[in-house]
Amino acid sequence: MGHVVSGSGAALTAAPASARSAAAKGLIMRTAERLYASRGLAEVSIRQIGEAAGQRNKSAVQYHFTGRDELIKAILAEHAEATERHRFAMMSPLGDVAGLSLRDQTRCIVLPRIEHHVELGTPSWYGRFLAQVVVEPALREYALQAHLDTPSLRRLYDAIHSRRDRHGPGQAYDPERGARREAMIRQLVVHMTAELEAELAREQPAADIAAEAWRRLGADLVTAVCGLIAAMDADENT
Amino acid sequence: MGHVVSGSGAALTAAPASARSAAAKGLIMRTAERLYASRGLAEVSIRQIGEAAGQRNKSAVQYHFTGRDELIKAILAEHAEATERHRFAMMSPLGDVAGLSLRDQTRCIVLPRIEHHVELGTPSWYGRFLAQVVVEPALREYALQAHLDTPSLRRLYDAIHSRRDRHGPGQAYDPERGARREAMIRQLVVHMTAELEAELAREQPAADIAAEAWRRLGADLVTAVCGLIAAMDADENT
Repeated sequence: MGHVVSGSGAALTAAPASARSAAAKGLIMRTAERLYASRGLAEVSIRQIGEAAGQRNKSAVQYHFTGRDELIKAILAEHAEATERHRFAMMSPLGDVAGLSLRDQTRCIVLPRIEHHVELGTPSWYGRFLAQVVVEPALREYALQAHLDTPSLRRLYDAIHSRRDRHGPGQAYDPERGARREAMIRQLVVHMTAELEAELAREQPAADIAAEAWRRLGADLVTAVCGLIAAMDADENT
Repeated sequence: MGHVVSGSGAALTAAPASARSAAAKGLIMRTAERLYASRGLAEVSIRQIGEAAGQRNKSAVQYHFTGRDELIKAILAEHAEATERHRFAMMSPLGDVAGLSLRDQTRCIVLPRIEHHVELGTPSWYGRFLAQVVVEPALREYALQAHLDTPSLRRLYDAIHSRRDRHGPGQAYDPERGARREAMIRQLVVHMTAELEAELAREQPAADIAAEAWRRLGADLVTAVCGLIAAMDADENT
């Protein structure tokens, strides 16, 4: 944790090297996320990120993160962790996910992402950043596996796939169809979140108005996803 | 049409300069699409595209397209035109779109994209290329307006928004809700298409198997979109 950078001569009043290093890392991550989200992954170099984060050393980003992909993974991990905290708080009182209604299972998939955005405030950058990362060939698989397929999400998707009322008599579960349903839900959540974030960044509403817009999107997504799942199930049973 | 490049001395047997220029443009476009789709917008320079397209002149891409954004717009336009041809062929015999069922209206939105992919064959690159372009800040608005909101799509979306059976007594049409529905449909079509394209590029199935996979995706998208719209309408009326 924290690389010690020639910090032995620092005065006692200065932060220790490890704390300074952690602060620099955090600053680089927030700067990178903002630049990537607003200009696009293609338009931002590692060097520009270091400069915009006020790092005098031209290789500060490489020093802290090795390179672009590791920097991006660190940003993703931070948000995934925060989202999982919301999901855990939401799911803990509900008991076994298999016993929940489809709507409640869907809520547990969608709403922790929404609450994370409410917490981030406006403007935020994560939504647009993630939307770019999931279509970037070099990062796509990593983003999907590490952050859009966490153990808690896995349990929820599995519960949705195996709901007993879904299967007609003698009908086998079709894993390909399950994967497609999951992909549709993921695409809707990731890309609709990015769209609302862009809109709020343009319009800069007050915090309570923004929170309301996020929760309206959350409710619409839950409704849309439930409708989509029910229609695909009905189709499968005919 | 076609810039004449010092072609006055060309032998009669050689293609005229304008034809050679058009061929070079086409080659650059196909090369760019493939490189962007497989490596990502961030990882491909204009110069690499020129080299990979076998252009000896280092500024061939700039010469034909001014720059990256114009090159990307030209690629989008070509696919949009082909998709619109499929949509026109599908809609012409159906008459007034307002009189169609929701399922048929949805089919006219989704299936022309699918048929364009069947026609492109495997591997294709357009699906992944478009998915990256719609999340790129500099190109997003252009891509949405020029290619995902064509007059024929506009008519279909408007017909879906104004279906009479949608509105409870005295209920006004909510344009914000309409825009959200449209965005959800667009996200599903663009990003699910990119996912199937990536899968087919990896697995390289025979042409008939690939065509079947595309049409299965088309059917799933139509079902999912109809379910999503019905659920959002029901929600709106309560």
